[in-house]
Amino acid sequence: MLKAVIDAETLRDAIEAVSSLVDEVKFTITEKGLELKAVDPANVAMVSLKIDASAFEFYQATPGEIGVDLVRLSDLLSMADRGERVRLELLEDERKLRIGVGSLSYTLSLIDPSAIRKEPRIPELDLPAHVAIPGAEFRRAIKAAEKVSDHVVLGVKDDIFYMEAKGDIDALKLTMRSSELLDMKPGEARSLFSLDYLSDMSKSIGKAPEVKLEIGIDYPLRISFMLKDNVHVSYLLAPRIEQE
Amino acid sequence: MLKAVIDAETLRDAIEAVSSLVDEVKFTITEKGLELKAVDPANVAMVSLKIDASAFEFYQATPGEIGVDLVRLSDLLSMADRGERVRLELLEDERKLRIGVGSLSYTLSLIDPSAIRKEPRIPELDLPAHVAIPGAEFRRAIKAAEKVSDHVVLGVKDDIFYMEAKGDIDALKLTMRSSELLDMKPGEARSLFSLDYLSDMSKSIGKAPEVKLEIGIDYPLRISFMLKDNVHVSYLLAPRIEQE
Amino acid sequence: MLKAVIDAETLRDAIEAVSSLVDEVKFTITEKGLELKAVDPANVAMVSLKIDASAFEFYQATPGEIGVDLVRLSDLLSMADRGERVRLELLEDERKLRIGVGSLSYTLSLIDPSAIRKEPRIPELDLPAHVAIPGAEFRRAIKAAEKVSDHVVLGVKDDIFYMEAKGDIDALKLTMRSSELLDMKPGEARSLFSLDYLSDMSKSIGKAPEVKLEIGIDYPLRISFMLKDNVHVSYLLAPRIEQE
Repeated sequence: MLKAVIDAETLRDAIEAVSSLVDEVKFTITEKGLELKAVDPANVAMVSLKIDASAFEFYQATPGEIGVDLVRLSDLLSMADRGERVRLELLEDERKLRIGVGSLSYTLSLIDPSAIRKEPRIPELDLPAHVAIPGAEFRRAIKAAEKVSDHVVLGVKDDIFYMEAKGDIDALKLTMRSSELLDMKPGEARSLFSLDYLSDMSKSIGKAPEVKLEIGIDYPLRISFMLKDNVHVSYLLAPRIEQE
Repeated sequence: MLKAVIDAETLRDAIEAVSSLVDEVKFTITEKGLELKAVDPANVAMVSLKIDASAFEFYQATPGEIGVDLVRLSDLLSMADRGERVRLELLEDERKLRIGVGSLSYTLSLIDPSAIRKEPRIPELDLPAHVAIPGAEFRRAIKAAEKVSDHVVLGVKDDIFYMEAKGDIDALKLTMRSSELLDMKPGEARSLFSLDYLSDMSKSIGKAPEVKLEIGIDYPLRISFMLKDNVHVSYLLAPRIEQE
Repeated sequence: MLKAVIDAETLRDAIEAVSSLVDEVKFTITEKGLELKAVDPANVAMVSLKIDASAFEFYQATPGEIGVDLVRLSDLLSMADRGERVRLELLEDERKLRIGVGSLSYTLSLIDPSAIRKEPRIPELDLPAHVAIPGAEFRRAIKAAEKVSDHVVLGVKDDIFYMEAKGDIDALKLTMRSSELLDMKPGEARSLFSLDYLSDMSKSIGKAPEVKLEIGIDYPLRISFMLKDNVHVSYLLAPRIEQE
């Protein structure tokens, strides 16, 4: 069972953080909120999303699972105006989700959860270096890096966080000292990542006031941030091999 | 003879209400204003437009007819900034319309009115149910319906006005009780319409504070509204056969 | 040697005035500022740009020449937000230009100046008629003319400045009396120009509060204006032969 009311933009932003990587997902419904974990088709990136019950204006649920086509859901949510509320109601017997916006009411067919790719096990990683920067700053650096290359190095050296992209002709470097960062745990770190994935993620990241980056040496990158209060997003991105 | 001055946006909006359905029209000029009636090439929708003389800042005319290419006219009017005035002057001998905007002056060649499709006779229909809703609400429901289907049912049952669109997978329903409507004349009504036409019309409809819908059972739909003061628009749309 | 700091929008606007005509240019660096002269690939239009040292927040230079790919440079400058500063530093030994925006630092490879087309000699012309109009008014007239033709006549007759475009069907005329112009030196003038070029130029021209047009009889057109304080742009456009 699920009956819930939430600000349209909050839900839209939460869905977008996931739909940039996967099209169909299995939501786990609990009394504490909605959750999902998913891995992209190429197995390069994982995402986990938690919308706490407190992020909703109204939330009543019994545990369960639903399969949702995020492309359809995003399309429907795009009809809501800024400031409007979305009403969600699970029609269990019909395997449908009723989505109400103002006087409109959609009936979205759900997907059989067993037809959706299995949830990934997200590894516990203890990454040596952490930095926290404004999401908008991260997004801008990613967009800038895309202008010169397909991949980017993220690293920490002494009290400096850096991003580097080298093209055939031009190069880009972002450098931020600990005094310019929102937070930092120094540690040696340097890994290379595909800009395709970071670019897909950065649209959501750019909306977060603060994003935490955990980096290792040729190790996956963890990116975690909060969209509005009580919507938690976390990405894990596999590194690429650096060739000189 | 025609000499007139009108707010650019008023004229632009009036033209757009028609150009969504037909490219070339015959305007009837009278002392009371400009008028036209037209039917779309597929004979599915009719439009009638009346711009009262009082909608103009200045209006001086003797009765006549002119044929106008609305695509060209819209394109020229797009040059006017919001708040600017458009000056119209008929050059009868040259069969041209002079259109002045600021220091610019266009000369638009007119079309021989006899080369334009004959004006339709718009049937008098006494449709059983009437509802009035904000134009923006209508537009939003049409856009929402397009996300799930190609056609939509409009109906009235008891004191409820509804729109329904059913796709292969998903469905949409708009429901408004009489207390949520701007006005209502209850009556049994239910007809199916093509969303293509409603979508073309809804851009103009969305600009009207209030739109009146007159509906029957498998009967044409009449949509009438006022754009600004003294610009009257009315559409008549043929129903489609509902198949279950 | 070059070390300079400038408002991002000022630099962006200056570059755009040139990049509408040529892709690669040779900048001449002097103590007084940056300068360039270039001719478009078809030899129809010339542009000269001067950014005075006083247009920079900081400017320190020794004379030299650098070859720059304007397409790359514009692309990089697009990352700067409105109100941000751009830091420029010439890395002479590496033949690179370092471009800093916030925490980002690009390294742009320069082009060998000898590989760039030779600077044109811009002829001294004493054109009989001068008019000054707001840049936005010029831009609008050009956009309006494009709706009816590929070329436009600019002319002065008595105390009237006019632009005329004639299409197969429709025609456009701009007429401004000396009292509506910002400035005028009357003189007989009438020349025909390609709208392609004027359209490319007009995006920059539209940003200038005042643009000076110098016109002759079947003679080139000189268009000069100032973008912000101390950024001087001048175009010279060859006439086309008028055929009746």
